[in-house]
Formats: sequence, structure tokens, C-alpha cells
Amino acid sequence: MHQLINDLQVNGRLAQQLNFILETDKLKQVIRRNFIADGSRRENTAEHSWQIILITLLFADYAKERDIDLLKVIKMLTLHDLVEIYSGDVFLFDEKANIGKFENEKISAEQLFGLLPSEQKEEFSALWLEFEAGNTKESVFANTIDRITPFLLNSVNGGQSWTEAGVKAEQAMRKLNIIEQGSTELWDLFLQLVERAKNNQLLR
Amino acid sequence: MHQLINDLQVNGRLAQQLNFILETDKLKQVIRRNFIADGSRRENTAEHSWQIILITLLFADYAKERDIDLLKVIKMLTLHDLVEIYSGDVFLFDEKANIGKFENEKISAEQLFGLLPSEQKEEFSALWLEFEAGNTKESVFANTIDRITPFLLNSVNGGQSWTEAGVKAEQAMRKLNIIEQGSTELWDLFLQLVERAKNNQLLR
Repeated sequence: MHQLINDLQVNGRLAQQLNFILETDKLKQVIRRNFIADGSRRENTAEHSWQIILITLLFADYAKERDIDLLKVIKMLTLHDLVEIYSGDVFLFDEKANIGKFENEKISAEQLFGLLPSEQKEEFSALWLEFEAGNTKESVFANTIDRITPFLLNSVNGGQSWTEAGVKAEQAMRKLNIIEQGSTELWDLFLQLVERAKNNQLLR
Repeated sequence: MHQLINDLQVNGRLAQQLNFILETDKLKQVIRRNFIADGSRRENTAEHSWQIILITLLFADYAKERDIDLLKVIKMLTLHDLVEIYSGDVFLFDEKANIGKFENEKISAEQLFGLLPSEQKEEFSALWLEFEAGNTKESVFANTIDRITPFLLNSVNGGQSWTEAGVKAEQAMRKLNIIEQGSTELWDLFLQLVERAKNNQLLR
């Protein structure tokens, strides 16, 4: 428990929640490989998480499946990267670093969500697992937004995270193909962005 | 329109949305007065926006009013600070800087949301105005979370944004009193944090 909480008269439930909030504040210090739109610095995972929620609100109509539970999509996106506090961000195109990623993150999820009151631990763990599995309409759309967003930023900021790692267009097509399941409009956008990136030598 | 969009074959609606996304990426570069939990740096408004969404998910049960539309609360919190891209962050306890704040931000809101397709412009503008007015159960709760969050961070990070501005406990009580409307549990927490901050000479 964080020192602050010992100074307060709060019940066990609120104490656990406050401790979780102070622990998850560390997401602001997890640095991703990709850069913000103007290319001036790499982005952190907390601000990325905000941006994909905003884009979900904008692009909700583009979901291929009807009657998507938007609140559930947003809950997943709010939580999905919290495991990076313990496991670090793994670059999508680093094939080697992605081996064992799910198993590592599962341990982090148990540790982090284990700080919460039991019913919130259950809820958050289930949402995280559903996002990772990507086998419901909400998790497919959440993954679609999570994938298209850094791709869009890379398309305008010089694609440094692609060029420094030598990312290939073929890899992008393979690692982002969930977008095709999630949205016709965003898959079309993605294909255009791939073509443009190839033409501009940002993707090999 | 951002240069990227001229390179793409997209319809007018998607073009406007992409332009809005690239413009609002700038929220990651709006720096607030308060520090992140470990005190190592000031936080930016994008990561703050993510954090208040996470805390809303955790604290939803503490809303005084029943049957709150949580998706609406989250929409407000996602959008409420976008105006800072044009108007800058105004420190809550800088009484002088707060004069004319709403009018300035209203101009920024018109400019920024004016980039969107008309029905999303209407929706986002209405949500922003509702948050500012704070006269519905959703906007009261959204404001409650938005206010308690930096107060909590200041309580653990040495309260530098308070001490450098000489913030008084009486000011905190006055500027954050919407928390009392929003939640019994969080108002009790806030009062304890004020007492502790006074005892630790973080608030005058």
C-alpha cells in the first residue's frame, strides 16, 4: 500500500482503489516506440490510451458489426495497456520480442489487477483477456482502433519507428490484418496508408 | 487540411475526421501545472484525460446520483480539455487567469469542433458545454472525477504546483466543492486530503 493510504481513514475497498490509481499512474512513464504526430518525441502509453478512446468516439460508425457496446470497447481501451507498467511496451514489428509476450503480460495482469477489490479485479481481468483474444465484436473493433492509430501517426511523422527498425509493408499487412475484420472503411484507409508509406520509402 | 489527407482518396467525412485527429494530437503537448504521482515531471493533458477515464471506471459506484450514463461521462472527459490546444491550460487556483476563461475556451471549442462533420460537431460541442455547465448528473460526476484526480496526485508528489503558487486550503475547498455534489465518499476523501495537506504545509 502506498504511504498516503496509511494516513487516511478509508475502508478497505477505497484503499485498494487508491493504491491501484497511484500504481497505474506509472503508465505515463511507459514510452512507446512510435512518435507523436509532429515527430518531436516518442509517445507514452497513457496518452496513446486517451487518443484511441477519442478515435473510437469518432469512428464508431465504421465498425463492421452492428450494435457494438461502445462502453465496453472504451473500457478495454482504457485498460488494455496497463500491463506494460510491469512488462514494458513491446514493439509490434519486433517479431523476436513478441515471443512469450502474452504469457509475460498475463503475469503482469494478475499482479496489477490483483491490487483491486475482487469484483473489479474480475471485471478488469476479463476485459483485458477479451481484448487480447480479439474474438468478440467489441474486442475486434477495439483492436482495430488500437492498430490504425499509431499507423496513422507514423504516416505523418516521418515513420521513424518504422525506418529505424526496417519494417516491411508485408509485415504491416500481416500484423494489422485485424483491421479488415473490424471495419471496411478503416481497412481501405490502411491499405492507402501502406501504399503511400511504400512510395515514400517509410516501409520497405 | 493536413497534407496527408490530400494524398488519400477518402470521402469528405473521413477527411474531416482525420484532420481533427491530427489536430487534437497536440493535446499531448499541453502541459499542466500539476505533476505526475512520482513528482518527476509535470503531466500533459492527454495523459490526464486517460487517467480520469480510468478513475471513472473505478469510482462509478461512488456517484451520489443513481442511473448515471457512464458512456456520456466518459465522452465528456475524453473531450473536455481539447479546447486547451488553442487556449492553454489554466491553473484552477490562478484566480486572475480564470477571468474570461469560459469565453476564451468557447471560441476555441467552436474552432476545434468546427473541423468535424456537422453531426459530430454538434454532439461534441453539446458535451463540452454540458461539462462546463455542470448542471446534469453526468456532468457533476465528470467534474467530480476531474477535480479529485490532480488533488490526489498533489497529495503524493510533494504538492509542488500548490506550494509554488501558495494555494490556500480555503481556496481548495471553494474551487473543488462540486465534489460534494458528486459523491459522498469522494467528498469525505477530499476533506481528509485537505487536512493532511494543511498538516504537511502543502496548502496554506
